[in-house]
Amino acid sequence: MNYPNGKKTTVKHDKTTSYSRRGMSLENDINVSNENYLKSDIAVIHKKPTPVTIVKVDYPKREAAKISEAYFKVPSTTDYNGIYKGKYIDFEAKECASKTSFPFSSIHPHQIDHLEKVIKHGAIAFIIIRMSIYDEDYLIDANDFIAFYNEKKRKSLSYEWIKNNGHLISRDYLRPCDYLKIVDRIYEL
Amino acid sequence: MNYPNGKKTTVKHDKTTSYSRRGMSLENDINVSNENYLKSDIAVIHKKPTPVTIVKVDYPKREAAKISEAYFKVPSTTDYNGIYKGKYIDFEAKECASKTSFPFSSIHPHQIDHLEKVIKHGAIAFIIIRMSIYDEDYLIDANDFIAFYNEKKRKSLSYEWIKNNGHLISRDYLRPCDYLKIVDRIYEL
Repeated sequence: MNYPNGKKTTVKHDKTTSYSRRGMSLENDINVSNENYLKSDIAVIHKKPTPVTIVKVDYPKREAAKISEAYFKVPSTTDYNGIYKGKYIDFEAKECASKTSFPFSSIHPHQIDHLEKVIKHGAIAFIIIRMSIYDEDYLIDANDFIAFYNEKKRKSLSYEWIKNNGHLISRDYLRPCDYLKIVDRIYEL
Repeated sequence: MNYPNGKKTTVKHDKTTSYSRRGMSLENDINVSNENYLKSDIAVIHKKPTPVTIVKVDYPKREAAKISEAYFKVPSTTDYNGIYKGKYIDFEAKECASKTSFPFSSIHPHQIDHLEKVIKHGAIAFIIIRMSIYDEDYLIDANDFIAFYNEKKRKSLSYEWIKNNGHLISRDYLRPCDYLKIVDRIYEL
């Protein structure tokens, strides 16, 4: 499920449906990894539900309540949070279909504010970017991301910058996006 | 907004609409308090969006995407989490319209599992119960709640138990449910 602004934020690509398919895929890989972390008693990290404004609900007799009118809301926080080794973890995950760069417009300013705030209170915060064309997932510490973002010199992160400053996330069958391995290393947990 | 199971879990009361009005009110008081904590740079704690399964979305031209069919999902986590003084905070909040007791059926077993898991990983976890008739809000440490729940001797917490084991939450205009004051005291933060 994409937010309506998912459409705005996607970089140009030949197939119009590809963003949403790939969007599901990183989300799915993170969800599968989170389920494995949960089952293995390693961490409790969940994706937050998609925020919607509910306008109309029907209550048919003997059936489940049906929401018949609702709209997507702009998220005021990131999509994922939870606890790992006693630490509060907070992150956003984004697919990127471009060969050359990840546009800052993919992340809502509210989400960047939120990351700044949780860092101030002691969180481990980061962004996961999937560079779909290269089939690579990178973890970028939110401090590094925000520092570059706040310079306001560029409107995107180049692929070079991502490779140099991000951390390539490994995957396996049980954890198709094994980001906690990187968290252990870079935050020395 | 109530989950459909909110209806099942409400204790009997003369006005059928009262649960949802009061439900909004504790939620609203916590949201207002959380906004104040956020503005005052004290904590970053948010209510998670209501989980829904989206079945059908219409994309009218020049208008916002409209969700035309969706259903409430059973929540797999609690409603609130965030970070305070470097600690991961996790809690559920419930209104109770009964004079005598808070029924365990008000809290979904998944949510109790979730509280047990986050405690194991080092969270500060609790339940806020509003005893509407007495106009009192209590914070109950999740360990105390779960220990009593797991004894399985009773199907509810008596008002006496809540008064003896819970911590009465104070309120003021800016923080109509100032639960972090209790958190400071009982978790010695």
